[in-house]
Amino acid sequence: MGYREEIIEGRNVVLEALKSGRPVDKIFVEDGCQDGPILTIKREAKKRDAIIKYVSKERLDQLSETKKHQGVIAYIAAYEYSEVEDIMALAKERCEDPFIILLDNIEDPHNLGAIIRTAHQAGAHGVIIPKNRAVGLTSTVARTSAGALNYIPVARVTNLSQTIDKLKKEGLWFVSADMDGDVMYKTNLTGPVGLVIGSEGEGVSRLVKEHCDINARIPMKGQIDSLNASVAAGVLMYEIVRQREFK
Amino acid sequence: MGYREEIIEGRNVVLEALKSGRPVDKIFVEDGCQDGPILTIKREAKKRDAIIKYVSKERLDQLSETKKHQGVIAYIAAYEYSEVEDIMALAKERCEDPFIILLDNIEDPHNLGAIIRTAHQAGAHGVIIPKNRAVGLTSTVARTSAGALNYIPVARVTNLSQTIDKLKKEGLWFVSADMDGDVMYKTNLTGPVGLVIGSEGEGVSRLVKEHCDINARIPMKGQIDSLNASVAAGVLMYEIVRQREFK
Repeated sequence: MGYREEIIEGRNVVLEALKSGRPVDKIFVEDGCQDGPILTIKREAKKRDAIIKYVSKERLDQLSETKKHQGVIAYIAAYEYSEVEDIMALAKERCEDPFIILLDNIEDPHNLGAIIRTAHQAGAHGVIIPKNRAVGLTSTVARTSAGALNYIPVARVTNLSQTIDKLKKEGLWFVSADMDGDVMYKTNLTGPVGLVIGSEGEGVSRLVKEHCDINARIPMKGQIDSLNASVAAGVLMYEIVRQREFK
Repeated sequence: MGYREEIIEGRNVVLEALKSGRPVDKIFVEDGCQDGPILTIKREAKKRDAIIKYVSKERLDQLSETKKHQGVIAYIAAYEYSEVEDIMALAKERCEDPFIILLDNIEDPHNLGAIIRTAHQAGAHGVIIPKNRAVGLTSTVARTSAGALNYIPVARVTNLSQTIDKLKKEGLWFVSADMDGDVMYKTNLTGPVGLVIGSEGEGVSRLVKEHCDINARIPMKGQIDSLNASVAAGVLMYEIVRQREFK
């Protein structure tokens, strides 16, 4: 695998990419476009679970590299996504309790890359990100992962809460990183575990948090709000490592 | 304090800044310039401990914003540095064992900012950076520190090893982050401690390491080399927090 990010433009090109099953992340469609080819693209996008965003012609002109976008521009993922099943299979293969990182709306590609890097180094079996809103596996993510993206599976799901519920049935339990939770050092973080990290601004969303079993807190003494999301993720992951292996 | 970064250009402007005691970080001087005003600038720079770099005229032209640099451009720190004594005084004021972070050549301003932020949140009393080679307190550092730079003292020293030796006499002992060290969870990290973090590429330099008391390692299971420097710093700082307060 190499580091690449691809923008494709124009009706035929985008439609062909969708039909051939390439990992299309997002499609930007000109607001108000309703003709036949656009409707076909929308239908195919739905089938393939690609996100469609409606934007102005000016925005498309800005994004365009060829200046021949014909009202549609798509982003192809730089890396192929794995499935949640691949992550569970990796844990099984290693004969270890599953250790999975779930990211609730991490929007900064540098943070996503650093978290993927740390997850791999901490021995986690995979990272799960939501399909909508969050950043995809772009070349920036690949670069900041320092190569980890080649080794650790990253899966993309439509609905984090549903994925949590499904994995609970397979024996996992879920910890949400939360400023109002119990101090992580005093919380049992062993066993088959999913760690949920939220965005820096908003933390883990209320709905997702309701699906978690406990909230764990990194103790903070400073006069500012929080830690950088990738630092917080690293500190929590390594507390899990400590409790699993060095207690 | 606000977020600002300042480049000043021209012989009189740079000389005045030096004489008035403003925190001049670095001065770029055109290679081969030896006239009176330049010699005066060099003499004043030496007095004030500002770093001088000799560069080509082409490089100065690139750096210049006014295009009237007259062979000299200086960078003014966005924030004022503290002294090592201020850091020790803060620990004393809080009636706590000193907990200091020393950075050996962190060159990425985002990493420096994130480390300052984590240090403040983990309850460290200050951050020490070397005068030469490393990045200064620019506006990027201030921004990525998320405001922490307003609360935690950051001191700049000429020679990290000498500072370590001096602080040892005041009762501190020093831990170096090192891939070949003992696993941090199995290492006693309590008491008055200085934690030394190296650059991502090279780690803590050999000379500085020789002045440290022990080397501590974050256990890594992945197939890549290391963690992001600010993540590694965060993981180690919080292991110190755990051992100091939650054992």
